[in-house]
Amino acid sequence: MTTLDTVLAEADRQLDQSLERLFELIRIPSVSTEPHYAAACRRAAEWLRDELASLDFDASVRDTAGHPMVVGHGPKVAGPHVLFYGHYDVQPVDPLALWTTPPFEPSLVPQPDGETFITGRGASDDKGQLLTFIEACRAWKTVTGSLPIQVSMLFEGEEEAGSPSLGPFLEANADDLRADTILVCDTDMWDRETPAITTMWRGFVSEEFEVTTADRDLHSGMFGSAARNAVQLLGSIIGALRNEDGSVAIPGFYDGAIELPAANKAEWERLPFDAEKFLGDIGLSIPAGEAGRSVLEQVWARPTAEVHGVWGGYSGDGFKTVIPAKAGAKISFRLVAGQDPHRIRDLFRDFVRAMIPADCSVTFKAYGTAAAQSMPLDGKLLTKAKEALTTEWQRETALAGTGGSIPILGEFKERLGMDSLLIGFARFDNRIHSPNEKYDLSSFHKGIRSWVRILHAFTEA
Amino acid sequence: MTTLDTVLAEADRQLDQSLERLFELIRIPSVSTEPHYAAACRRAAEWLRDELASLDFDASVRDTAGHPMVVGHGPKVAGPHVLFYGHYDVQPVDPLALWTTPPFEPSLVPQPDGETFITGRGASDDKGQLLTFIEACRAWKTVTGSLPIQVSMLFEGEEEAGSPSLGPFLEANADDLRADTILVCDTDMWDRETPAITTMWRGFVSEEFEVTTADRDLHSGMFGSAARNAVQLLGSIIGALRNEDGSVAIPGFYDGAIELPAANKAEWERLPFDAEKFLGDIGLSIPAGEAGRSVLEQVWARPTAEVHGVWGGYSGDGFKTVIPAKAGAKISFRLVAGQDPHRIRDLFRDFVRAMIPADCSVTFKAYGTAAAQSMPLDGKLLTKAKEALTTEWQRETALAGTGGSIPILGEFKERLGMDSLLIGFARFDNRIHSPNEKYDLSSFHKGIRSWVRILHAFTEA
Repeated sequence: MTTLDTVLAEADRQLDQSLERLFELIRIPSVSTEPHYAAACRRAAEWLRDELASLDFDASVRDTAGHPMVVGHGPKVAGPHVLFYGHYDVQPVDPLALWTTPPFEPSLVPQPDGETFITGRGASDDKGQLLTFIEACRAWKTVTGSLPIQVSMLFEGEEEAGSPSLGPFLEANADDLRADTILVCDTDMWDRETPAITTMWRGFVSEEFEVTTADRDLHSGMFGSAARNAVQLLGSIIGALRNEDGSVAIPGFYDGAIELPAANKAEWERLPFDAEKFLGDIGLSIPAGEAGRSVLEQVWARPTAEVHGVWGGYSGDGFKTVIPAKAGAKISFRLVAGQDPHRIRDLFRDFVRAMIPADCSVTFKAYGTAAAQSMPLDGKLLTKAKEALTTEWQRETALAGTGGSIPILGEFKERLGMDSLLIGFARFDNRIHSPNEKYDLSSFHKGIRSWVRILHAFTEA
Repeated sequence: MTTLDTVLAEADRQLDQSLERLFELIRIPSVSTEPHYAAACRRAAEWLRDELASLDFDASVRDTAGHPMVVGHGPKVAGPHVLFYGHYDVQPVDPLALWTTPPFEPSLVPQPDGETFITGRGASDDKGQLLTFIEACRAWKTVTGSLPIQVSMLFEGEEEAGSPSLGPFLEANADDLRADTILVCDTDMWDRETPAITTMWRGFVSEEFEVTTADRDLHSGMFGSAARNAVQLLGSIIGALRNEDGSVAIPGFYDGAIELPAANKAEWERLPFDAEKFLGDIGLSIPAGEAGRSVLEQVWARPTAEVHGVWGGYSGDGFKTVIPAKAGAKISFRLVAGQDPHRIRDLFRDFVRAMIPADCSVTFKAYGTAAAQSMPLDGKLLTKAKEALTTEWQRETALAGTGGSIPILGEFKERLGMDSLLIGFARFDNRIHSPNEKYDLSSFHKGIRSWVRILHAFTEA
């Protein structure tokens, strides 16, 4: 029996205790966005510090302007140095009435197909996922007395609140936190059987704008046609945002946008993705993105503009013949590598301003940005992790993209120059952020085993 | 002294009593849209019946499905037969706190410029205005014992509620109500010194529509660009509604629309209308209607499309990266003679349906319609009324249009075949429908005198 086999066996043996530790953590109601849970957030941080200390980590709870951070450093070991990032805070639990088990009283619920659900708020996002890594470290520690590579960990308590303290904390602790790569366990598998590493995510820039025409709402009988209608103007702007072929019509929008690398394209073509089913599951059949691009490209590798909400005029019951003087919208752009979010914001504003008549006006309100990121598919650590995952799950690991944005990893890149490896064991039906969140027991168990293998594989990287 | 002079003198002499009668009527809180004022509405109807009876009218209160009608017929006299229409119901008074005098306790408030305001809900709309006509009849009756022409009157109590009972009532009482023309006193003067007859008003068709894309709201990180965005689709439709030159882009929209007759055009060019001020007063300077049309044409004589309100997605505080699955708008069209409202509704629906992708859908909800109307400027009664007004006010009477729609007069035209003469003495600053409604004492006094003259002038028509 190799050392690896012994550590895997230890991970199996300790599973019940691992679960008990997960239950302890779920029982701490660390909802970051609700002030009366602030003490619970600190308790979760202290709990994690103690776990790390039990692994001989030099661990501490660090205060921030918001909820505290937990930083822990394992003993120095030769080879690569990884920084594992996770978050101990969870989403609010409302509406409570929809939960079939209490959100902060975890339980194991056997399923007809042989799977068992670990229920509770945070069971998946991110308490269950982050513990797969800690428990893998514990198995190594128990068997060998140490970890196979140098490991640091960083846990924050404000991820569900937009991570306001993370950037300043990284900035202030750059030397303490810098490592060869960040490991994150906060993503999904490709499907129930297929492990995945997320290697590409889109950037983001979000914006609100409001146009003003007349100095008050007017009656359409008195002014109809001669007085500029703010909703009509807003509609013209929104209507002009995207071309008939699905592309974004803002001049310069695509300048510098990097085409999907051939390696990713080849990888994605291999993936069992059914575009028809993808759209069919949401009641659609016609891709709305750029013509000539596959659906996967449209959602993972191509930039887009999306309007998230509009307002203006009267939208209540019945009818009012008002000419609205104000109308606005919230809009965001998903970006790809090569597009600077701040430049895109400027281009958008120029585009809108050019459509505003001289006697009307527009105001803008900036919301957040995040840069797109794309990890090279042939990186040493990525290759090793991929092999380890494929061995554990006995399925070729998917190197996937995501159309979402991960601002915190932009912070790591920008402030510490670090790339990320996103390996998660969640499943699409985990109901994170919703009532009845769950994590599959197989996600938890095989997740721990996967990290055991990855830590071992990294010794050879 | 001619008979006319004597009657005018009587109108002057009786002014205090006329005012007292107006105060009595204003004190009756006949708010038609609030059920607990139903008894007050009936009381107002009975009050009017009694006034008509005191003029030897055959007058009665007639029940309807809603508030009652008042119908009165004066003694038969040779010459033209006019049907005066007015409404005794008033708008709600909320917000009460903004009134500086109680809405149902009328008072006389002297102004620095020598004018006196008659305050109270309905002082102008329409109690003050309709009494100008009744008091003119009273002056004639007092002096000559009769009226110079045959007069009938119809008062309804649901004008502020959309006149739901009027059409059926006209239909059921067509023979009883038919006359040579309808007289209405519910409009404004051209300006403080210049009397006006409104000879043209636009038609109307109103509609609500909602587009549905996916079967639920989606996350733009997961589906952004590939999944059709309902607000984007709605924006495209609204944006396409009007062309860059301000015209309506719906195919067939202008078919049959009748150009402003040369007589009206000549009349309007004479009117002291300052387009720059008209727009400047509402904070605008660039006419948004059809290029090459004057502002007066745009608002009085050209059809238009106006969006009154829009909804879809998230419009609250902060930001949600949702791809909305539903979005809708309320829209109306102002029409001119030659445009059938029902045909315009169909054209609009076809226009929208043509823009809906095959995997999306749209629903429509019809609101009201009204046909445009235009009175010939050389009609005998109109010409006589115009001369009488010009004599009383010592200013050339304006033959004006209005961009609004007057559905009730469409009912009279459609059901009884009757044209209308709209002569009103209200002023633009009367705050009808708002707190602190008022009617100028000079409107009331000279309004009565104007009708005295018009009734006389009609004997020669």
